[in-house]
Amino acid sequence: MIEKKNDAITSRDNDFAQWYTDVVKKAELIDYSDVKGFMVYRPYGYAIWENIQSWLDKRFKEEGHENVYMPMLIPSSLFQKEKDHVEGFAPECAIVTMGGSEKLEDPLIIRPTSETLFCQHFSKIVKSYRDLPKLYNQWCSVVRWEKTTRPFLRGKEFLWQEGHTLHETEQEARQEALHMLDLYVKLGKELLAVPFICGQKTEKEKFAGAVNTYSIEALMHDGKALQAGTTHYFGQGFAEAFDIKYQDREGNLQFPHQTSWGVSTRLIGSIIMVHGDDDGLVMPPYVAPTQVVIIPIQMNKEGVTKACKDVYSKLKEANIRVKLDDSDKTPGWKFSEYEMKGIPIRIELGPRDLEQNQCVVCFRHTREKIVVKLDELVNKMPEFFEKMHNEMYENAVKSQKAMTVDCDNYEEFKAIMAKPVSGYVRMMWCGCKECEEKIKADTAATSRNIPFHQENLSETCPVCGKKATKLVVWAKAY
Amino acid sequence: MIEKKNDAITSRDNDFAQWYTDVVKKAELIDYSDVKGFMVYRPYGYAIWENIQSWLDKRFKEEGHENVYMPMLIPSSLFQKEKDHVEGFAPECAIVTMGGSEKLEDPLIIRPTSETLFCQHFSKIVKSYRDLPKLYNQWCSVVRWEKTTRPFLRGKEFLWQEGHTLHETEQEARQEALHMLDLYVKLGKELLAVPFICGQKTEKEKFAGAVNTYSIEALMHDGKALQAGTTHYFGQGFAEAFDIKYQDREGNLQFPHQTSWGVSTRLIGSIIMVHGDDDGLVMPPYVAPTQVVIIPIQMNKEGVTKACKDVYSKLKEANIRVKLDDSDKTPGWKFSEYEMKGIPIRIELGPRDLEQNQCVVCFRHTREKIVVKLDELVNKMPEFFEKMHNEMYENAVKSQKAMTVDCDNYEEFKAIMAKPVSGYVRMMWCGCKECEEKIKADTAATSRNIPFHQENLSETCPVCGKKATKLVVWAKAY
Repeated sequence: MIEKKNDAITSRDNDFAQWYTDVVKKAELIDYSDVKGFMVYRPYGYAIWENIQSWLDKRFKEEGHENVYMPMLIPSSLFQKEKDHVEGFAPECAIVTMGGSEKLEDPLIIRPTSETLFCQHFSKIVKSYRDLPKLYNQWCSVVRWEKTTRPFLRGKEFLWQEGHTLHETEQEARQEALHMLDLYVKLGKELLAVPFICGQKTEKEKFAGAVNTYSIEALMHDGKALQAGTTHYFGQGFAEAFDIKYQDREGNLQFPHQTSWGVSTRLIGSIIMVHGDDDGLVMPPYVAPTQVVIIPIQMNKEGVTKACKDVYSKLKEANIRVKLDDSDKTPGWKFSEYEMKGIPIRIELGPRDLEQNQCVVCFRHTREKIVVKLDELVNKMPEFFEKMHNEMYENAVKSQKAMTVDCDNYEEFKAIMAKPVSGYVRMMWCGCKECEEKIKADTAATSRNIPFHQENLSETCPVCGKKATKLVVWAKAY
Repeated sequence: MIEKKNDAITSRDNDFAQWYTDVVKKAELIDYSDVKGFMVYRPYGYAIWENIQSWLDKRFKEEGHENVYMPMLIPSSLFQKEKDHVEGFAPECAIVTMGGSEKLEDPLIIRPTSETLFCQHFSKIVKSYRDLPKLYNQWCSVVRWEKTTRPFLRGKEFLWQEGHTLHETEQEARQEALHMLDLYVKLGKELLAVPFICGQKTEKEKFAGAVNTYSIEALMHDGKALQAGTTHYFGQGFAEAFDIKYQDREGNLQFPHQTSWGVSTRLIGSIIMVHGDDDGLVMPPYVAPTQVVIIPIQMNKEGVTKACKDVYSKLKEANIRVKLDDSDKTPGWKFSEYEMKGIPIRIELGPRDLEQNQCVVCFRHTREKIVVKLDELVNKMPEFFEKMHNEMYENAVKSQKAMTVDCDNYEEFKAIMAKPVSGYVRMMWCGCKECEEKIKADTAATSRNIPFHQENLSETCPVCGKKATKLVVWAKAY
């Protein structure tokens, strides 16, 4: 039996929203700032983001992408060049009207996303097919004036990466948009232990200015979906609006084909809500800022502290992110604290263990405890991490499967969405916006995406009865 | 003889400012944006910053510092809590007055620096001596509404790191401020090949809100100084203003002692202006985004491209940042291009070299060319880099010495400062602000800092004739 230790955390099934708030605060991931919707990323929270960054950045670069940094502020005149784009983002903008004690002639918008800046720059530097492809990425924060905010999930400011690329052909650009989506899925599978489903967004849900938007979606413990990243094929729309032209191989002027793609600190929200339990966070080992914590038992007994320090040094030498807590707090306090923080592996080492040249290894995700010989510990770590990661991923896949149902009847659909834990519902759709709007009005669910792997669950759209054209995954979402 | 190849660049001694502008644009470090004072960091410029970041970040962390991320926006009410601080920064602030189509009640300031945000957070999380020291750092961009701007040197937005730490004792905090200054000096010596002189800022030149400010200063080719980084001891002033209190070991409430410290993309300006020549950039090898470029000669001849690719693979495997340019441009065009970009080492490989199993290695900083056997090339790289780095550093030290004079006579001082290349002048000072102001009014020179290693060059201050108290380094500065 798993004993519940942290009474300070609301239980998940009691009040999931409160559980989430408790965890992000008490595991010291964030602090609220004085401005609603803006938050302080504390060391433990920021380190998760650094691990995500370093995983992605390495792969972006291996595939030929280059990092750049664009200005934080966009002239409102520039922002208005692409019509759909400005319509989509204008209502969420933060606007600088004063600079150096003077009123600005052209107000400046804090970037909610940087397409317009990239395009303006591209229009100056791209002249020939030899300049293509341009494969750029930027790490930065963006500001969107959201009304309802939640740490990591929806904030007025968030950290992200935004890739922006230009290509000679539509095919190459579409490949890039799909390939980056694959990379995000891989990030989920290999680093976050979160299974993402991927597919195309409907017209209604696509990015302002895109021809096609693709998304990765994850299912949280409460049965709500989280859009965790998107990639876009822009066609030539931005290029036309910003006059980005290149001379092709035959000497003719052409507009390049464009993409953009991004993931944000929202991913941290998915880790929390997919893996967390009633004692707090459960961090998958590869993304965990601290992978192992060592806790001495009966520290005053001879040799215990020294032995713990030895273990610490050996793990550190093996590039394992390890912490030794030899503070004067009780082991019980420490157990609760590091369970709350979701440290994947706890090592307990006391006088009796020492006598037998062994220690106790406790896995956060299962609470399983095993005894390991001290001289085998370092070598066993990689397999511990791998096993743990795989089990956490498989659990998340199972949980997602258990919360996914197929449906060909709108009354049934409404009944599912009325449940406290509604999950993914796979249902056919005619393709019209009216049905999406009706579903949202009736149930608060939205189309998550149109999976690449299509099946035919019914001939007609269960909402309007017209011919069905697409299988869609529906869910309530963050 | 060094042949001047890039006519497109103004010569340094003709017009140093224009030379600088030519280099940053033509070496593709930056592009100007549509908003004056904001710039686009292009891949080659941003990669220099990434290398500086990774050098510093590793060392910050090794010494126990943790990264955090604070909000970009500061409520104006919070900003006003520390009196000197707000007076210093208020005139340079960019202010957000609109958010989500509505006027904000409390306008928000885009961070010009984040002391106030760190302090507000510290006041919530620091309770006991057990919580100290707090050793935080943040990587971000800041906005200061400067009137005159120059790429990397002074911009309305720049990238930097800002360290913020809290300590139990004054001594520990002062040690931190001085230690981080040492680390910046080491960065100059080991990565940038730039010698920094360090010392304490005068009262007039110190940071708004600091008890003491320390600086690193570098001397540019045109004899002007560049303040390249600062560290500050804050005492307890901010802690009092923000009510940061902790219970000490005796159970009494105390204000902690505080520091902050930062370097920015200005460092890139110092690399350009210390090492560059009339053909463009000269990048020191350890900070260079591309360390080696391989240029095939007579590519159509059998085996040349293959041999170049082999060399490329071997260097890459050895973790050298290498580029192979096998485009259809002429070798001459490529030579100019990569000289302009200051790539430290160029490898030329043609059919004749291939016959003899060798290549030509050309060093950017001296233009020296040597012949190296292909099978020795990879192993020789570390010594090439080391030699090159040391020579560049020594040259910079020599140049700094040649431009530094001691002076004990104000007329002589004014004559030196009237020269086209004025350099550092070491001169005694009484300690009063009036003399500093007079010097600035007469010569445009400012006190750079008060060196830690003091000497006595005269008994009196050459400006006012009163008793001299400090040796100061003076210079015109960026």
